[in-house]
Amino acid sequence: MKNILIASTSTLANQNYLDYLLPELQLHFQNCNTILFIPYARPGGISHEEYTAMVSLAFAKINKKVIGIHEFEDANQALKNAEGIFTGGGSTFVLVSQLYKNNSIEILSEVVKNGTPYLGTSAGSNICGLTMQTTNDMPIVYPPSFKTLGLIPFNLNPHYLDPDTNSNHMGETRETRIKEFHAYNSVPVLGLREGSWLDVKGDKITLKGDLTARLFRQNQAPEELESGTDLSFLK
Amino acid sequence: MKNILIASTSTLANQNYLDYLLPELQLHFQNCNTILFIPYARPGGISHEEYTAMVSLAFAKINKKVIGIHEFEDANQALKNAEGIFTGGGSTFVLVSQLYKNNSIEILSEVVKNGTPYLGTSAGSNICGLTMQTTNDMPIVYPPSFKTLGLIPFNLNPHYLDPDTNSNHMGETRETRIKEFHAYNSVPVLGLREGSWLDVKGDKITLKGDLTARLFRQNQAPEELESGTDLSFLK
Repeated sequence: MKNILIASTSTLANQNYLDYLLPELQLHFQNCNTILFIPYARPGGISHEEYTAMVSLAFAKINKKVIGIHEFEDANQALKNAEGIFTGGGSTFVLVSQLYKNNSIEILSEVVKNGTPYLGTSAGSNICGLTMQTTNDMPIVYPPSFKTLGLIPFNLNPHYLDPDTNSNHMGETRETRIKEFHAYNSVPVLGLREGSWLDVKGDKITLKGDLTARLFRQNQAPEELESGTDLSFLK
Repeated sequence: MKNILIASTSTLANQNYLDYLLPELQLHFQNCNTILFIPYARPGGISHEEYTAMVSLAFAKINKKVIGIHEFEDANQALKNAEGIFTGGGSTFVLVSQLYKNNSIEILSEVVKNGTPYLGTSAGSNICGLTMQTTNDMPIVYPPSFKTLGLIPFNLNPHYLDPDTNSNHMGETRETRIKEFHAYNSVPVLGLREGSWLDVKGDKITLKGDLTARLFRQNQAPEELESGTDLSFLK
């Protein structure tokens, strides 16, 4: 049975890394001593080692050990053996490229579908959707495909931002970009604000956190969904 | 001799489409009666016809006729015959995908290098760089490559936005994303603020408009460049 947490962000303003999620994570990873960490998204271009050290510090607070997937000779065997998996944020393009390079996309999808507890934040959440086509990230490397894990039957836009009504900036708003996505694609997109997450238990997908989330569907007006909403109806 | 205007945006706040550029465009396209318009970027998903109609309205103010490239049976012949070319903004991913589909990337690059006056705004400016890897757009379609026209020897970030120091939002700033680009690429990136443009005459590239632009180079601190700066030194 799927057991997945998909968070918009790792970090809330003025808080430490993962702090707001730690009570959830204690439950989520209750049967794991060690978390396999996927540091491939390399936020700010930091190394796999630096990123893993930062994540270890956070998980130490709930007495979990963290091992970076880059420390294993066989990344796919590490995925198969993992007690729990966390994929951190950074560049979705870099993350997806590396997963394809390792031939890990299908294996990662499979082990999580078979029940290995998974946590994603930001880029690590983006990859839970059908494709990475609604990421906010810059295309700094060219992945062999935009197809991702398909752990949920729709796409995400993490760090969802409402239009700034005071701004004179003429660049596209997030909503405009998602509308453009729907000119070419019929996949629903959930705009997940910072502090929201999805709790996936089997086929049940529940919106968690204090905020509403914004749902975009092709040829329909966007909708605000309350925390606690069961999203299993989305296809 | 190259004769190119590369603008950050088509439209300034509270102004009509292209208004702030019209005096420049009158000079730039002085020897053209008709402008060939490339509407492929489809802002907000509008049709080629709608987009071309909007552009025609703006160019009518300086007595230029506009024909959309989609009206020609042979797009590449249209490029070769054009008196002047304008590529409008929208999705860089959609634009680049369509140019590849038409096998137009090399032909467009060639005719502009040989002197056909060119105007780009936003996505139409992005493609003037070496690659589209520093676009702000969502990857809503998958192009066969990120390589673009290479009319200038660096990359652009149009609609460049300074970090909002009052914001609690934890998504990456533009500067962070460009720094991440430089973890994997050595190509310089010019952050072009709305209201700025580059004037390319042969090998001379001059920053125009009232604002400074922000130059990012690998392993160097970002620099602010004054309007009027000759950018020919960039490689």
